Amino acid sequence: MVKASIITIGDELLIGQVIDTNSAWIAKQLNEIGISLIKRVAVGDNRNAIIEALQQAMNDTRVIIITGGLGPTDDDITKSVLTDFFGGPLVVNKAVEDHVKHLFKDVFKKPMPLRNLLQAQVPRSCTTLWNPVGTAPGMQFEKGNCFVFSLPGVPFEMKEMMINSVVPFLANRFKLKPILHRTLLTEGIGESALADLINDLEKNIPKGISLAYLPHFGMVRLRLSANSGIHERILDNHFSILCERVKEYLVTPTDETLPDLVFKKLLSTHRTLSTAESCTGGYIAHKLTQKPGASKIFKGSAVVYSNEAKIKMLRVNPETLNAHGAVSEAVVKELLSGVLQLMNTDYALAISGILGPGGGTSEKPVGTVWMGVSNNQKQVVKKVNLRYNRLQNMEVSCNMVLNMLYKLLKEDNPVAS
Amino acid sequence: MVKASIITIGDELLIGQVIDTNSAWIAKQLNEIGISLIKRVAVGDNRNAIIEALQQAMNDTRVIIITGGLGPTDDDITKSVLTDFFGGPLVVNKAVEDHVKHLFKDVFKKPMPLRNLLQAQVPRSCTTLWNPVGTAPGMQFEKGNCFVFSLPGVPFEMKEMMINSVVPFLANRFKLKPILHRTLLTEGIGESALADLINDLEKNIPKGISLAYLPHFGMVRLRLSANSGIHERILDNHFSILCERVKEYLVTPTDETLPDLVFKKLLSTHRTLSTAESCTGGYIAHKLTQKPGASKIFKGSAVVYSNEAKIKMLRVNPETLNAHGAVSEAVVKELLSGVLQLMNTDYALAISGILGPGGGTSEKPVGTVWMGVSNNQKQVVKKVNLRYNRLQNMEVSCNMVLNMLYKLLKEDNPVAS
Repeated sequence: MVKASIITIGDELLIGQVIDTNSAWIAKQLNEIGISLIKRVAVGDNRNAIIEALQQAMNDTRVIIITGGLGPTDDDITKSVLTDFFGGPLVVNKAVEDHVKHLFKDVFKKPMPLRNLLQAQVPRSCTTLWNPVGTAPGMQFEKGNCFVFSLPGVPFEMKEMMINSVVPFLANRFKLKPILHRTLLTEGIGESALADLINDLEKNIPKGISLAYLPHFGMVRLRLSANSGIHERILDNHFSILCERVKEYLVTPTDETLPDLVFKKLLSTHRTLSTAESCTGGYIAHKLTQKPGASKIFKGSAVVYSNEAKIKMLRVNPETLNAHGAVSEAVVKELLSGVLQLMNTDYALAISGILGPGGGTSEKPVGTVWMGVSNNQKQVVKKVNLRYNRLQNMEVSCNMVLNMLYKLLKEDNPVAS
Repeated sequence: MVKASIITIGDELLIGQVIDTNSAWIAKQLNEIGISLIKRVAVGDNRNAIIEALQQAMNDTRVIIITGGLGPTDDDITKSVLTDFFGGPLVVNKAVEDHVKHLFKDVFKKPMPLRNLLQAQVPRSCTTLWNPVGTAPGMQFEKGNCFVFSLPGVPFEMKEMMINSVVPFLANRFKLKPILHRTLLTEGIGESALADLINDLEKNIPKGISLAYLPHFGMVRLRLSANSGIHERILDNHFSILCERVKEYLVTPTDETLPDLVFKKLLSTHRTLSTAESCTGGYIAHKLTQKPGASKIFKGSAVVYSNEAKIKMLRVNPETLNAHGAVSEAVVKELLSGVLQLMNTDYALAISGILGPGGGTSEKPVGTVWMGVSNNQKQVVKKVNLRYNRLQNMEVSCNMVLNMLYKLLKEDNPVAS
């Protein structure tokens, strides 16, 4: 087993100013080429802390990915620390220098500060990693048994360099089988009840395969992971048995999210969707339009956050609003028919609720959400009572209404995937 | 200086299935009571890895916050490891047991699996930390010079326990001054040019205050941080000088985001907003409606992702679309007037662009975005050419149009904050 660790560098990680999204992404890439990440460490822009983390990582793991601290400004010290650690002096890399000049001249169209030109210097001890989209080159070092890669912390630069340089190098150097994972998603059953339901199966899982429970906003994912000694067929076999056992609650036997599933199903069946969002305030539209090609399946959303918007954008009857309130079955039904008709789509979803912290009443407490989906023949609506905080209620209710839509899509198109 | 470290536990952190948002939040809480986080470590559900991380953290830091691995299922081993490390046996905590029973009976309204009842057991060596919103109690240990806290990984449970138990305990135990940060946000100037602009100021910053550059989606934040030996007035003095120097590019002399700034300004001036979003697909509406009380300032958004939606929801003239295309000054102007009129708000913003990866032409390449803002008197529109990937283009263009709106709001209301 080839073990890896990640070291992220930057004070901003230690005072809570930035959330580290790089590590999760890097972890996935390493897993896919069979390398096991066993530890992630974040330290500040501090010479001793960086060296200590690096030394320890080199004791424990053969592959070390360092991100951050390669910017042109004086608070960034990673290159200086690594130069001292692995050996200097700094030398100019001509290709990088030309690239930095080109970026300022042709892309940024700004005069080039001298400090950016200095980014073209790298320690003699390293192999320079090409950064196609930024001014900071990456560095690759080899010492003892270890491979150490230093990459920028800017996510899109880091990703380019992982994909173009680090992953191909490691895949070729170690030639490992990917670490296999199988994940399924359930809805409508808690973590403990799920554990009881599959208790006997869990006990029979062979050594080398591990089971994990991943509860997430009212849904639970189950993941089987196999180490390289396990044949894929054995893993698949245990996974099928697991899927069969939980089928009543099964959303998907994959690691896809509900927006992914809905998107794929609409795309493969050539159907379109519009949405009417009150309490979720555009979050569902945002989830769907993050993906390239969204215009093929999504026509638009009426984010009807106020009563006025419900009336003016989707012609909800003011009397319905008066009689039942915005959070009601009657209004959600009018939102559904209103948006389906206005946007002329095959499917629509609508949602209206009180996510909190304010706005609750004794009759309709915080967490009351009406939601529904519709095609041209029928509407399905339901009410739920959520018990989380505002943002969690938003996340859970998005998932719930997307799952309603996914069920309807599967009903209408049982074969196409 | 009291130093702290965070240990997050869970295989999901090492295979990239989950992004760790807890650590950033915890770091902020610790900073506010004067405790310096110096290291964050993530390890898997692995006994040796957990113990090794814990031992090292106890060598380096006096305060250790552990999150994760306290669930009721067999893959969660944190409690068992800590019981062995700090001393057992496990004993039932009656108050927790009653609380778990109450949650299942009155809140979840489901039969209680036995494995949840076992969560009421805690090692004799710990002080139990009350979890008001979940079934897993927290644990507090004291050994040598160190305080070790074990909290659930579920963010809303962890947060409750940090706020109610951990922070009050540490604040009282150490009675430190907060670590002071001052942050400003700039737009329209790159990191290096900014560094050159403030080069002489940076050199005069006294020991004990540090300056950091935080580039983020086309904007750059500058942060001054002072250790406890520095008087607040000295920090504020250097910060004012910095603000004055960068004033041409200054968005705000605070650590607020653009959605925060726009939200606050609309709220304090009792003004309302509606939005017409094509390429951003509801993301701006989502950013504004994440906050409680959004209904006071936000009436709704027309997410007009298709041409049909532009015509039907906001009465954009089909001839304008034919003549100029959806990504054009003319269409953005019609979107602005359309949504302002339909939604009857004080302000509107509109955006239409090609975020990629597909959809570009030689005349309008990927990254071409038209955006604008308007009040009842005037419209301001502009075109930008972005050079990132889809999601980054989305983030950058959201920030840009929100900054346009913020400028207009400040122009209209120069005094109110």
